[in-house]
Amino acid sequence: MDLVWICVISAIIGGCTVGYFARYILRQSAGTEKIRELSGAIQEGAMAFIHREYRTEIIVVIIVAVILGLLGLATPDLGWKASVCFIFGAICSLGAGYIGMNMSIRSNGRTTTAVQKSLNQGLRVAFRSGAVMGLTVVSIGLIGLSIVYLVFHNDPYFLATIPAYATGASLVALFARLGGGIFTKGADAGSDLVGKVEAGIPEDDPRNAGVIADFVGDNVGDVCGVGADLFETYVEAIIAVITLSALAVGVGIVTNAQTAWYLPMLISAGGIVAAVIGSFMVRVSEKAEVGVLSRALRNASWVATALSAVFSFLIIYFLHADLGIFWALLAGLIVAVIIGEATNYYTSADFKPTREISQASVIGGGATMVRGFAVGLMSNWPVVLATAVAIVIAFKFASFYGVAVTAVGMLSTLGITLACDSYGPVADNAGGIATMAGLPAELREKTDALDSVGNTTKATAKGFAITSAVTNALGLILSYGVAAGLVTISGGKIAAAPELNLLSAPVIVGVIIGALIPAAFVAMAMKSVGVTTGLIVEEVRRQWREIPGLREGKARAQYGKCVDICTAAALKQMLAPSIMTILAPVLVGIILGKFALGGFLLGSLAIGFIFANTLNNAGGAWDNAKKYIEAGNFGGKGSDAHKAAVVGDTTGDPMKDAAGPSLNIMLKLMAVISLLLAPVLTHFGGLIY
Amino acid sequence: MDLVWICVISAIIGGCTVGYFARYILRQSAGTEKIRELSGAIQEGAMAFIHREYRTEIIVVIIVAVILGLLGLATPDLGWKASVCFIFGAICSLGAGYIGMNMSIRSNGRTTTAVQKSLNQGLRVAFRSGAVMGLTVVSIGLIGLSIVYLVFHNDPYFLATIPAYATGASLVALFARLGGGIFTKGADAGSDLVGKVEAGIPEDDPRNAGVIADFVGDNVGDVCGVGADLFETYVEAIIAVITLSALAVGVGIVTNAQTAWYLPMLISAGGIVAAVIGSFMVRVSEKAEVGVLSRALRNASWVATALSAVFSFLIIYFLHADLGIFWALLAGLIVAVIIGEATNYYTSADFKPTREISQASVIGGGATMVRGFAVGLMSNWPVVLATAVAIVIAFKFASFYGVAVTAVGMLSTLGITLACDSYGPVADNAGGIATMAGLPAELREKTDALDSVGNTTKATAKGFAITSAVTNALGLILSYGVAAGLVTISGGKIAAAPELNLLSAPVIVGVIIGALIPAAFVAMAMKSVGVTTGLIVEEVRRQWREIPGLREGKARAQYGKCVDICTAAALKQMLAPSIMTILAPVLVGIILGKFALGGFLLGSLAIGFIFANTLNNAGGAWDNAKKYIEAGNFGGKGSDAHKAAVVGDTTGDPMKDAAGPSLNIMLKLMAVISLLLAPVLTHFGGLIY
Repeated sequence: MDLVWICVISAIIGGCTVGYFARYILRQSAGTEKIRELSGAIQEGAMAFIHREYRTEIIVVIIVAVILGLLGLATPDLGWKASVCFIFGAICSLGAGYIGMNMSIRSNGRTTTAVQKSLNQGLRVAFRSGAVMGLTVVSIGLIGLSIVYLVFHNDPYFLATIPAYATGASLVALFARLGGGIFTKGADAGSDLVGKVEAGIPEDDPRNAGVIADFVGDNVGDVCGVGADLFETYVEAIIAVITLSALAVGVGIVTNAQTAWYLPMLISAGGIVAAVIGSFMVRVSEKAEVGVLSRALRNASWVATALSAVFSFLIIYFLHADLGIFWALLAGLIVAVIIGEATNYYTSADFKPTREISQASVIGGGATMVRGFAVGLMSNWPVVLATAVAIVIAFKFASFYGVAVTAVGMLSTLGITLACDSYGPVADNAGGIATMAGLPAELREKTDALDSVGNTTKATAKGFAITSAVTNALGLILSYGVAAGLVTISGGKIAAAPELNLLSAPVIVGVIIGALIPAAFVAMAMKSVGVTTGLIVEEVRRQWREIPGLREGKARAQYGKCVDICTAAALKQMLAPSIMTILAPVLVGIILGKFALGGFLLGSLAIGFIFANTLNNAGGAWDNAKKYIEAGNFGGKGSDAHKAAVVGDTTGDPMKDAAGPSLNIMLKLMAVISLLLAPVLTHFGGLIY
Repeated sequence: MDLVWICVISAIIGGCTVGYFARYILRQSAGTEKIRELSGAIQEGAMAFIHREYRTEIIVVIIVAVILGLLGLATPDLGWKASVCFIFGAICSLGAGYIGMNMSIRSNGRTTTAVQKSLNQGLRVAFRSGAVMGLTVVSIGLIGLSIVYLVFHNDPYFLATIPAYATGASLVALFARLGGGIFTKGADAGSDLVGKVEAGIPEDDPRNAGVIADFVGDNVGDVCGVGADLFETYVEAIIAVITLSALAVGVGIVTNAQTAWYLPMLISAGGIVAAVIGSFMVRVSEKAEVGVLSRALRNASWVATALSAVFSFLIIYFLHADLGIFWALLAGLIVAVIIGEATNYYTSADFKPTREISQASVIGGGATMVRGFAVGLMSNWPVVLATAVAIVIAFKFASFYGVAVTAVGMLSTLGITLACDSYGPVADNAGGIATMAGLPAELREKTDALDSVGNTTKATAKGFAITSAVTNALGLILSYGVAAGLVTISGGKIAAAPELNLLSAPVIVGVIIGALIPAAFVAMAMKSVGVTTGLIVEEVRRQWREIPGLREGKARAQYGKCVDICTAAALKQMLAPSIMTILAPVLVGIILGKFALGGFLLGSLAIGFIFANTLNNAGGAWDNAKKYIEAGNFGGKGSDAHKAAVVGDTTGDPMKDAAGPSLNIMLKLMAVISLLLAPVLTHFGGLIY
């Protein structure tokens, strides 16, 4: 029997668990009429956006698929297969995001209702909604890959075809993250800021026309966008390892290509089982406090990780692969935990850096900005150094194959880490609904507590996300190097083409241009959020001014208008950065040649890594610095320090929720496009070099 | 006769012009007693800072010199020579900055007085003060280099010794830029912000205790710091070309090493003569308007550049060097002009990007930040692409030697471009003195107009600075590659060691860690300014509270206290980033080996380039967006939009005047330290790779 059927079985186990959890959630009470009404408005807006977003995405996917098919003419028989895999990857990604979001928009009102009974009830609904997302992503991811594998693995072009599956997923993810990010941050900042411009419209007030758009944004950005993001992360990590199989065989750490293909897929299959076991462990007594809930989540997460590590060891052992691979994987896990803790140090108000930002806010907005920016940049220290250590160790033990496997190890338990991460927006929405439905304020406190429950696991998840993104992108770049013939394996050693030397003109120019693209990408994403924010501010002000009775709370605001504006703006503006991401590696490859493209990918990885980190952590620190002031420090809510901290938060939001996370996707998308392009480039060469 | 005597002669011509201009300035009236008193206070503060700063710098210089001497034990006879050159380079740099600043602190009051007669008189005093700085830098730079050349050029270790001269200059420059930057921006933001914290203390008001520190900062930062910066830029560009001489001979673009050494020095000598001619051309009729003055400056600058290009052609021709070198140089000049114009587009309020920041400020501080940040990042497009084109062309025509010569070509007319740049702070100080001395407001308008006169030339100067920094740093990295044996030249072709391939573990880890250091450096610089700002705010508030009669303008503020605080803070905080800059390449080289160090340097160059650009241009755009609002747009001064724009400006100031410009120096300092370290690394290898 082909061992890949094990993957299919474990994906089915994951799928059954999804069904069980979904049934559980849908059986819960959907709440009072008011709650159902609000929840309904959010559902309506979210579905409207998703349908329009998907339509745009499908058009782009079809265009790219056709181009891929045409490029395949260079190597006959490859083209259409790549197109098919590409479309299949895109569909799987769209499906995973769709299912996850469909669950979350049904869970928010139910969480509001459940939390009225007990914190534990609320946690269970919210967490299981997150688990549906998490397990859906990994199950669809693995079953999709298994199908591609079973259909194509005897094809001579298997290794050139399979990256197309990841490319499809990656492209959809970029759109979803960007589109969702622009939508959610534009709506969020727009509805928050309007109070400052047109005094008297408070945030989260039903009379604020932007408020439903804000909630919709949480779902389309933080749930659907994140789901698509992690779907691509998950499948791309596995595919990077598979495409490095020849290298692994060449340097002698696996006995044959088949083993090198099985390995990442089986590790992921083990991870799904571990995640399912972990997610059933999240049970506590009805009267549990926040601390207990938090520990339950953390323990579940740890158990899943430990189980997955054990499974990985067994898989490596029984496949007769080099045990060095396991050490590489283990080093990666340890480093990721360290990075998570370090990131937490820089962004949590429990520690000095974030508190210093709060303190600086007393001086004014400029001081808040300068300090927060410094904290974000400073947080690169532990992250970069630890990642460098992970790369050095992984490489020593299992060459580049080991580096790529590291990412798979970290992502294997994604089913549960994603669950811990993505029930946050559900809890957040539940709180928003509680406020809007006029429920007592302590309910909001409970949902806020719920949101904070997963903080420790979230920090670890963040560490995993960062480290896996870099090791995965690196794996893809190396795959590109192998595919394009930049490096070859002979006599157990990796040899490089002489033109690939670091100090050759094409490589230098490539590295320098590579550094440009992430910067330009961030610029576009930030500007898009800024533009959308402006539109929402205008619209909320207009309604406030023009709708009679709105001020007095007698008339209803036209929430749909704001949702429409955000939708149109997000869809329009996600296109330019996405197209740049697709075109940049193609143009560099065609004009400057395959060696420059190698430099381009490494340059963009190095700077993109720093940018993503800085944006995420500066944003996180500003957010928590504001919350620290709101908790009554340095003057508390409404003080000048608070106003300054709000500036920091508004700046940090698009950084940490739109630009930063999209960067990780775009880095990998560029790498995987280059990988697909490799056969063409080897054929034709570049115009200049 | 050794052709280097031509350099000595042209440096003497430059020196005589300095003497002539200095005599002219000192003959002008020093103004009323009040003006002399204020000017005296600025002089006193500036000298006090410089003396303390120099003391700290000298200690570090001696320590590094001793270490250099000890490292030289690896290659006997090299050590002490490197130490001597290093100290000599440091002394020359210290001297150039000292002379320039001594002139500027004597010119500010005189400019205030002269501008009362006519705008032209004011321009002449201020411009000649700038020209003293510019010509001092190039004359001392070239004569110092000539001395090193004449003493050591027959030494077998000449090429390993001469970079030490640049290292000395570079280290001093880093201290001066950082220390000066922290001082000036801390004082500036501190004295500006205090009004917001303790309502009622206006900016530039004599009762504001921080105001003299602010003026002192202009001199120690924008004059002395900039002078040291450009001194190192100038000599380092020449030295990068000299150290690539073997490569130039190897690929056959010069006939012998001697020619390759003469070439950059003679081009610089020609440039000094061109700059002297240009600076005497800045003459207009007494009643000239701003437009005429502006054109005069621009014409002078163009004539000098054109002359220098002609001289360069003749030098290349008569040295029988490959004419490709000239085309490389010319391409660099053209690209630099394009970059200057593009930069101007992104940062001037005459164009859309900056105006959009002003417009976004209506929404609030967060919007200002997001938009400004996006503009800064976006401005990388033209800069990076144009630089890439320059590198491709220069390399095609004259290999890496051509890339390095490009920087020399751009910097040859530094004497005049620096003059156009550095009379700005003099005009600014003159205006401040006018306000504080209670002179009529229209005088301030005149000095502001004076400040704006050089805007076009400044844009070009900025383009030159960016392009030359990158091409120069690249030249140094390549020199390192040659010196450390990473690349060798055989049969007219450049060959690289196989371990230098881009996709080897050491190079990848090197590139990733390389990207970290500029980010950490910016973080430290930003935080330092933030801390200093906080201290000044506290002190100004304390004086306002505790000094009886200060509010009513009867008692005098203790300006000296603020100067002392800035001095102590700047000196303390410039140490950490500087030491990191020195240690980073050393540690990477020792631990990860010479190949990783190559990757490290290229990684830091790529990201440092983007960071420097982004910080400079975002800062510039925020500054001008604020001014655009102050000019009466979007609500004008005092409006909410203005307050938001002030947040942008306060954030941008440390970016564009402390962190950004220091980055260029640190990139080159790391490269030149690696170059010095190359013989040691070749001897011992790294610990891991």
